[in-house]
This record gives sequence, structure tokens and C-alpha cells, in this order.
Amino acid sequence: MLENKDKLRPNLTMLTDFYEITMANGYFTNGLGNKTAYFDMFFRDLPDGGGFAIMAGVQQIVEYLSNLSFTPQDIDYLRGCGIFNEGFLQYLADFHFSCDVWSVPEGMPIFPGEPIITVRGPVIQAQFVETMVLLTINHQSLIATKANRIVRAAKGRPVMEFGSRRAQGPDSAILGARAAYIGGCCGTACTICGEKYGIPALGTMAHSWVQLFDTELDAFRAYARQYPKDCLLLIDTYNVLKSGLPNAIQVFREEIVPRGFRPAGIRIDSGDITYLSRRARRILDEAGFQDAKICASNSLDEYIIRDMLLQGACVDSFGVGERLITSASHPVFGGVYKLSGVEDDNGNVIPKIKISENVAKITTPGFKDLYRLYDRSTSKAFADVVTLHDETIDDSRPYEIFDPDFVWKRKTVTNFRAVRIREQLFRGGQCIAKRRTLAELQSYCHRQVETLWDEVKRFENPHHYYVDLSPKLWNLKHQMISKYSN
Amino acid sequence: MLENKDKLRPNLTMLTDFYEITMANGYFTNGLGNKTAYFDMFFRDLPDGGGFAIMAGVQQIVEYLSNLSFTPQDIDYLRGCGIFNEGFLQYLADFHFSCDVWSVPEGMPIFPGEPIITVRGPVIQAQFVETMVLLTINHQSLIATKANRIVRAAKGRPVMEFGSRRAQGPDSAILGARAAYIGGCCGTACTICGEKYGIPALGTMAHSWVQLFDTELDAFRAYARQYPKDCLLLIDTYNVLKSGLPNAIQVFREEIVPRGFRPAGIRIDSGDITYLSRRARRILDEAGFQDAKICASNSLDEYIIRDMLLQGACVDSFGVGERLITSASHPVFGGVYKLSGVEDDNGNVIPKIKISENVAKITTPGFKDLYRLYDRSTSKAFADVVTLHDETIDDSRPYEIFDPDFVWKRKTVTNFRAVRIREQLFRGGQCIAKRRTLAELQSYCHRQVETLWDEVKRFENPHHYYVDLSPKLWNLKHQMISKYSN
Repeated sequence: MLENKDKLRPNLTMLTDFYEITMANGYFTNGLGNKTAYFDMFFRDLPDGGGFAIMAGVQQIVEYLSNLSFTPQDIDYLRGCGIFNEGFLQYLADFHFSCDVWSVPEGMPIFPGEPIITVRGPVIQAQFVETMVLLTINHQSLIATKANRIVRAAKGRPVMEFGSRRAQGPDSAILGARAAYIGGCCGTACTICGEKYGIPALGTMAHSWVQLFDTELDAFRAYARQYPKDCLLLIDTYNVLKSGLPNAIQVFREEIVPRGFRPAGIRIDSGDITYLSRRARRILDEAGFQDAKICASNSLDEYIIRDMLLQGACVDSFGVGERLITSASHPVFGGVYKLSGVEDDNGNVIPKIKISENVAKITTPGFKDLYRLYDRSTSKAFADVVTLHDETIDDSRPYEIFDPDFVWKRKTVTNFRAVRIREQLFRGGQCIAKRRTLAELQSYCHRQVETLWDEVKRFENPHHYYVDLSPKLWNLKHQMISKYSN
Repeated sequence: MLENKDKLRPNLTMLTDFYEITMANGYFTNGLGNKTAYFDMFFRDLPDGGGFAIMAGVQQIVEYLSNLSFTPQDIDYLRGCGIFNEGFLQYLADFHFSCDVWSVPEGMPIFPGEPIITVRGPVIQAQFVETMVLLTINHQSLIATKANRIVRAAKGRPVMEFGSRRAQGPDSAILGARAAYIGGCCGTACTICGEKYGIPALGTMAHSWVQLFDTELDAFRAYARQYPKDCLLLIDTYNVLKSGLPNAIQVFREEIVPRGFRPAGIRIDSGDITYLSRRARRILDEAGFQDAKICASNSLDEYIIRDMLLQGACVDSFGVGERLITSASHPVFGGVYKLSGVEDDNGNVIPKIKISENVAKITTPGFKDLYRLYDRSTSKAFADVVTLHDETIDDSRPYEIFDPDFVWKRKTVTNFRAVRIREQLFRGGQCIAKRRTLAELQSYCHRQVETLWDEVKRFENPHHYYVDLSPKLWNLKHQMISKYSN
């Protein structure tokens, strides 16, 4: 399915930090509004101490940037603030987005320090979009990354996203389910995501269904008669082994098999799921329902799923809720958006740097691009190189990579493929982004994660993936650091 | 200001777990659709190990329930799922909300085990709204609770909400800022919240403003000329003490004072803010700017603010971002929504219970209400009592409260005021909710938190506030537990 143009979204132009507008007004009245500026989005730390993150949210950035416009009410509100120039307010009323935008595609593994998005254009505009660019990519990349970890922990077993009720607002449920699907979840419990995005929306019954009937058996019978083709019964309302499972088996025998179907299975939502699933598996098998699946839910995440499987849990699929939809163990993706250059009157890029006493917070200046190097013999990615935008890496010749912090660590690589991994989304304000279906993005993500070494994919203490700077860029950065340090 | 009717919200009827619809279809075809059911929302654990939470999100529940309706596209999507009865789909197409709803008002402190919302009505409807009721109250109560902790840590100094860029989707930014305001924040950086909700939206400059000019001094000068009345300068782009602060003082002297104004102050967004703020305070004072405020931001929360103030940080206001807008140290508010009763054909309530081997997960059955008991001599709240809905607590007579788990812990109280703290929001589907401004909600929250003892307000190891059951309710619950345990 092609992802629907998102009818859900109201105009979010005014979802911007107020300082973007005070600065924009200042640029405007200082005659700097049309100065061409370059901003990069990058992040410094990986969620959960993992080895990589997954880029997500690009489609929503495209929609946001395509729809930027101020209503008369927006202008009135700003006028009422009493601090904005009338000429500036007129500029906003006539606002026309005219920037160039580059981005790593959705589903791609990304690493700290990489310019995952670059916006080039009039500084008023390129600055203005900071808040929504960060919010959107930070949120969806966080959830796609978490989902990918959970899906990898499940080792091929399907993982459903079940978190709407604990999401941080409606968008967190809806866009979180989208990001989780890109990261590898097979579906969602959130109905609106089925309708709007075509993500498989699934679900059977809550405990309240069972409670509403006089007995658990009555409840199971009614459900089985209603949905005989896909009868998955929730068996922990009263007692899994004493009541839920025997009742389920009785109903499978009395209501499902005689209708010519096989039961879908059971779901366990509480208790010691590892123990209960092993017992349930044996009992189901002995009852002749070897094909009935066991689904587990209840405060799961990658760590618990890994441990359950290590301990022999007999679980065929997982429903993961709050710890996925909020990335509970690491609920913030810390992407930032920093000025990297401005153009002089002749169109030359003057690189800009943000110095900090915290070395990790020093930015990389200039108009940049991003290459990923893949080993031709294994197809594995082994390093990314941030370059200046006009550089190319010639992969027909040996190339020396080096650690930007410990520059004596050098290595000459051969037999590799160098791929420029960013795509242009907007040219002069015109959208040129490729549209991809969510299924394509999920599959792309899966294939790209496959190109990473297992050492990078560890949940804890992963191998540090190399993100190097080209020699030209390294020199530029260090010349500028020296200048400000003296 | 009266909170605007929220034009931002699209129709969120389909933001519901798919199982709500499979169950609804099942109730419908089993002739149970109009059976009257009672559902309670309650929560079991307090975020961050605190002593209480703050109720928030009720206004959005009111809007959601007032706007429940299925579009033809929604019905087509559901029909396409191939499992729903046509009569049921027609019921949805003609959907008309007809439930009664009770809720604790926004801004009120709430405690585990309390029925903070009760929905009574046809089971199809009362079940259907589960997802959005939970999502909305869980999200906003989480953020209001966190904001209240942070505001209390700041001991009277204003706290601004700065978190949009790290929020979990646009709603998380917008509704999170709303909840943060209820919890006590003085304003937000999120412009749309100023426009839509009247929350003070504020902000000055980013590092990029400073970088865009040739020198920091030029940047400060341009800003000061633009905003002389409210000149707050960000002084950590290069070096706080060597560059930012001397430049700020120079500009205050050259551009602000001669225009007849006083500088607003400085903002520090990195480094050791405790140390830097103390140094900056002294330097500002010596320069004659004793009235210039120092604003601090950068990964703050209640713990860091408390420690900074304990160590003598000279900070006049705080900007708090990601750790507030995501409640990063505890990003999930675990409210649940459980069936507590159904009516028989004569309108008698048949209580329902969910049993669990985990004692804390056993629900409290029946149609309930909630009282708060305040000591008349101190005005402090000392216990809440969950009662059956037709009970009243007569505060003109001594009343015995007892611990529902350790029933030998009993105490007879006198000289107290018993207040039924829930309000009815809907009667037979008609909205009868009181509308309150956000400023009223903030002030209400502040006053209600004042009624709690300091021991309950500790950040760690707070006193456990009593939430007791009335004797009648306790007996009902324990009779039902016995029945299922035998």
C-alpha cells in the first residue's frame, strides 16, 4: 500500500519554538532574512547504549515542509505579541518555502555525529523549521530504533505494537505505530493506523469480555462462535492453568474444530509467562493443538523477550506496549539542529562552528555529505565518512579512513563500495522526495540492518561503528577549533 | 483566558484498539450491546516513586467524547476487514454516545487505586472509549505530575516548558505543554500553545543567532536593538565567562541602558551551571545589573534543580525540556480501565472483579465514588475513601477509616470535612462538564497540592497517603475474592 497522504494532520506551522520567530524577526529587520544558511540535524548518543539507530519520520517532515503556511489567525496572534515588525508579519503571511533539504532515507541505520538532515536556504526559513524537524525525526527514530531492538530480540517471531493507551498523546500512538512498523513490527493494535497507513491492525479481546459473561466458558464460546476462523483466546482473567487453558481447549474442541477450523491460539497477559507458556504448550500439544499459537503480552521489551527465550519460553508472538511506544528505558532521542555555514554575497560557503568546553558538543562545520562504505566481499558496512558536499569518494582506489578523535588510528581500505546515503527531499522549496510505501520502508530497514556486523547489533556494549571525517573536513574543523581556542 | 475549543484535533474516533471493535461486534451480535456496564480508570503506581499524581487531560476527554462519530470511510475500512456484522456497522454509522461519565477534576492530586474516571453506559460504548480515555489521561497526568515536581523543586522560581523538540510527536509537545502548565509551569516555548491555549509562549535566541553574526558582540547588539525591552542574551555559544558575559554586559551598557531600559538578563545552556551562575551573578552585580535575571536550561529536572539550589546556584528561572515533556525518568503513567459492574434487566448493579495472582492487580468491584477527607483544623487532606456510589460519608459524626490490606490498622477520625471529589462530565451522553480556563486549573492544582502534608510531597520515600475502602465496599470485594478463590 502507498502511505496515504495524511489527512490526520492539522497545520502545524505554529508548532515552533517561539525563539525561532523572535530570531526570524531579528534576521528580517537586520536585512539578514535572505542570507543563505546551512543547518544540520545530528545526534550524539544512541538510545539504550545500542550500536545504531534507525532513521524515521522523513515522510512527516516532507508533509510538514510541503504545508508550511500561516493563517490570518496565526498572524493576528503574532501581531498581538507586540514585538514583531509589520513587514516581517507580511513576510510570514506570504510565506513560501524555498529551501533545499537532504536526508538519510527512512529505515536506514544512522550513527552519532552524522548529518542525517541538512537544510539550506534563507536563514529565516532554515532556522524556522528546526523545532518540527527535530521533534519529528527524534520521535520516530526513537521508536523505530526501539522497535528494531525488540524485533531482533524476538528472533523471527512476530512482534505487534500494542502501546496506544500508554502513548504520549494521540500522535505518539499513531506515528509511533508507523515508526514501529518501519523498525520491523508486524502490525499494531491501533485501528486508525490500519485505516490511514495500511498497517495491519489486529486484536481480539480484553479481560472485560471474559468478565462480562457469567462464566469464562460462556465468554470463550461466544467469541469462538463469532470469530471461528481466527479464534485467539485470552486465558488469564481468572487462572491460566486451572481455568483459562482448560476452558480454551474445551471451546476449541466444541466450537472451532466442528466448524472445520483450527484455533488461532491463546494469549497470556500476566504472571510468569515463561513458566506458563511452557506448561500451556505441553497441554495444548497433548490436546492435539500443536498448531495453536501462544501469544505473550504484559510489559515486554527487548531484555525481557531475550531472557524469556533464553529460558525456553514457548511463545510464538509478542504484543509489546508501553515500553515500545514510549521507548521507556530511553525515552528521548537527542537530535540537535545546528548552524554549519552561511553563504557570502558571492555564494561561497563560510563554515560555522559551535565551540563547547564539552568536546562532544563541538559541531562539524561546513556544507557536508555522508558516505557509507560497504565491503565488497561480505556486503557488510564497515564505516561512514562525513565529507564536504563537493567531495567524492572514489571507491575504485584505496581510501584511508582515520578516527577523527584519535587520528593515529588509520586504516587503508580497498575492495569497497562507497555509497552517498542521503537523498534530496526539496530543491528550491519544491518537493522531489521519493514516495515509498511503509512496506517498502520496513523491508529496506531490514535489509540495511542486515549489512551491519553482529558486533554492532549487540544490545549492550556494541562495537563502535566508525563515523570518520574526510581529511578535508577534518582539517577545516580543526583549523576553526584552533582559531576559537586562541 | 478560556481554553479554546480545540481546532487542532482531527476526529480520533478510530484511535481505538482493534479489540475494542472486535469485542463490540461480539456484544452486538450476542444481543449484549445495550447491556449497561461500568468501567473504572485507575492506576497502581506513582511516577518516580512520588507521593501523588496530578489529574490532567479531562478537557480532551470531554472533546473526544463529544465528537465520537464514524465517517463513511471508517465504516468502509471496517467492512473491508471482513469480520464485522453489517448490523453492527450500521450501529457504528449511526453512533450516538449515551454514557454517563464521572471524573476527578483536572489539577487534583490523585492516588493509586482510586476510580479517577468511571464510565457507565451500553457496554459497546463504555468499552469502546477505553483506548482514548487511557491514552489521554495517562499522558497528561504523567506530564502534569512531572511538571509539578519540577516546579516544587524550583521553590518559587518560574519554570518554563522548553521540550517541544524532544516530544514524542506533535501532540506530545502541544498537550504536554498544556499539562505542564496545569502542573505549575509559567509558560512554554511552543508557539502554537500560546495561540491555541493562551499559555504564555516565550523565547529569545538560539546559539545559531550568535553564530550567524561575525562576532558574538555583533549578535548581542543586533538582538538588543531589536528587543531592548526584554533583552535576555544566551551567553554560552563560545565561552560563558571569557566572552559571553563580558559581551552581554557591554551590550547592556551600550544598547539597553541608554534607551531607558533595564536588561532582562542572561541564559546559560551548558557547562556547570551552578558554578557559572554564581560567578555570573557576582559579575553582573558588580557591573550594576543586580536586577538582571539568570535563566538556566540544559537537561534539567527536579533532581538537578534541587541539587543546584542546594549548592547555591544563582538561578532565577529554569527552562526545562526533554526530561519534562517526556517525563524521562518515568515515561509511562500506568492507568488501566477495568470492568467493575453490569446491570441486570432490573437495573441492579452486579459487581464484577478481575482476580489476579498478583494481589495488587485485583480490581475493586462495583459502582463507586470517591471522597477526600480534610482535617478541619489544618485544612490538610489526610485520607481518601472509595465508597459505593450510593453511600455518603457523614462528616458531622466520627468516621472509622481502616487500611484495606492490613485491616487491623484502624483509626476513628473527627473534626473533618468529607468532599466527594468527582464531577459528572456526561449524563446520558450529554456533556455537562464545567469549562474552566487553564489559569483556573493551574491555580486549582496549586491550592489542592497545598492541602497535602509535606511528607506526602517528598520526591523520594514519601509518606503513603491513605486510600481506604468503605466497610461496605471492602466487604463486597472480599466476598467476591473468596468466591473465586474457592
